[in-house]
Amino acid sequence: MNPSDDSARGRFITLEGGEGVGKSTNVDFVVEHLRGRGLEVVRTREPGGSPRAERIRTLLLDPAADEPLDQTAELLLMFAARAQHLAMTILPALDRGAFVVCDRFTDATYAYQGAGRGIDRGAIEMLERLVQRGLEPDLTLLLDMPVEAALARMIARGATLDRFETQAPAFFCAVREGYRHRYEAAPQRFELIDAAPALAQVQAAIAAALDRRLAQWGTI
Amino acid sequence: MNPSDDSARGRFITLEGGEGVGKSTNVDFVVEHLRGRGLEVVRTREPGGSPRAERIRTLLLDPAADEPLDQTAELLLMFAARAQHLAMTILPALDRGAFVVCDRFTDATYAYQGAGRGIDRGAIEMLERLVQRGLEPDLTLLLDMPVEAALARMIARGATLDRFETQAPAFFCAVREGYRHRYEAAPQRFELIDAAPALAQVQAAIAAALDRRLAQWGTI
Repeated sequence: MNPSDDSARGRFITLEGGEGVGKSTNVDFVVEHLRGRGLEVVRTREPGGSPRAERIRTLLLDPAADEPLDQTAELLLMFAARAQHLAMTILPALDRGAFVVCDRFTDATYAYQGAGRGIDRGAIEMLERLVQRGLEPDLTLLLDMPVEAALARMIARGATLDRFETQAPAFFCAVREGYRHRYEAAPQRFELIDAAPALAQVQAAIAAALDRRLAQWGTI
Repeated sequence: MNPSDDSARGRFITLEGGEGVGKSTNVDFVVEHLRGRGLEVVRTREPGGSPRAERIRTLLLDPAADEPLDQTAELLLMFAARAQHLAMTILPALDRGAFVVCDRFTDATYAYQGAGRGIDRGAIEMLERLVQRGLEPDLTLLLDMPVEAALARMIARGATLDRFETQAPAFFCAVREGYRHRYEAAPQRFELIDAAPALAQVQAAIAAALDRRLAQWGTI
């Protein structure tokens, strides 16, 4: 009844966290939880999320490439994929009132390229402004746990490692710190989720956080 | 004998111009002319010029893609390819004293994406600074001729048209103007070549321009 512009627009929810924190499993959980509340949900991921953006993802993650990838080229490919993803998938979904649940977004660029690889944060901020024009996630669920335990999970999982996953443990420590700095700079956008406990406990925390936000937004 | 840092470094020469001005043929000519002067020459092109940058080129030029390419994504892909090209091909060649002859560079971004598509010039300048860190071509040969005659040449050639070549004539007029603005803003970097006459006459002008610059640089 008499919806404002704001309530007619969908909400943009991102999941973030380092390797081994259970991000993919919990993206599924978030999508199902929101659908269980009767919401239309678009599930997507970065880098990727549209046909051309997925092809950029392939260029970015190829672990057996014929030449190293220049750091600035990597950063620009990330934001090129993001611009395409926003234009083709995220913005159209939000405009029609859908919820968008995205596996990683710009916080990951700050954590991996910025904190992890030491790329100048000013360059990331400049590209963020160019590509996002002020758009930010409405909510970011940051899954956080100690790096050693997360890497042990990853190894137990036995998955094939891509270019980003074959880094030294020090890199993942820097990534975790990078994520925590993002949280500390804008805590109201985040829900910090302890990812160390058993899955059921983690998901109970996620469900509570989601329902709290849905109530704030007037969605439920 | 006792070369300064400057004379030990190679020179970076770019060829620019709209469709149909005979750019590819004249890139060959420039490369042969310089080799005839006893110089080591690396011939390259944009977008592309290294294995990963060529894969970005494929993404950029695909005319039959499954979704439109967002303009900001296009701009970022161009500069991602440029960063990779500089790191893998151009800078190593210049550092060992070779000449680099490149079919298109950043002037083309200003002409095609800026003047042609109306992308904000401030965004291009920002990306140029991020990727090139002050590097500019030592010489840019700008092949210039009326758009109508150039398009007639292109049609006579009967080549398959890529995504950039299937634009309206008004687009190519804007591109030509964009190139001329680049020339007017920094005429000392450019040699403006009238590309309308017969090929032999055009190439005589190119040879004269090259020899003049080589003499200025103390190369011959």
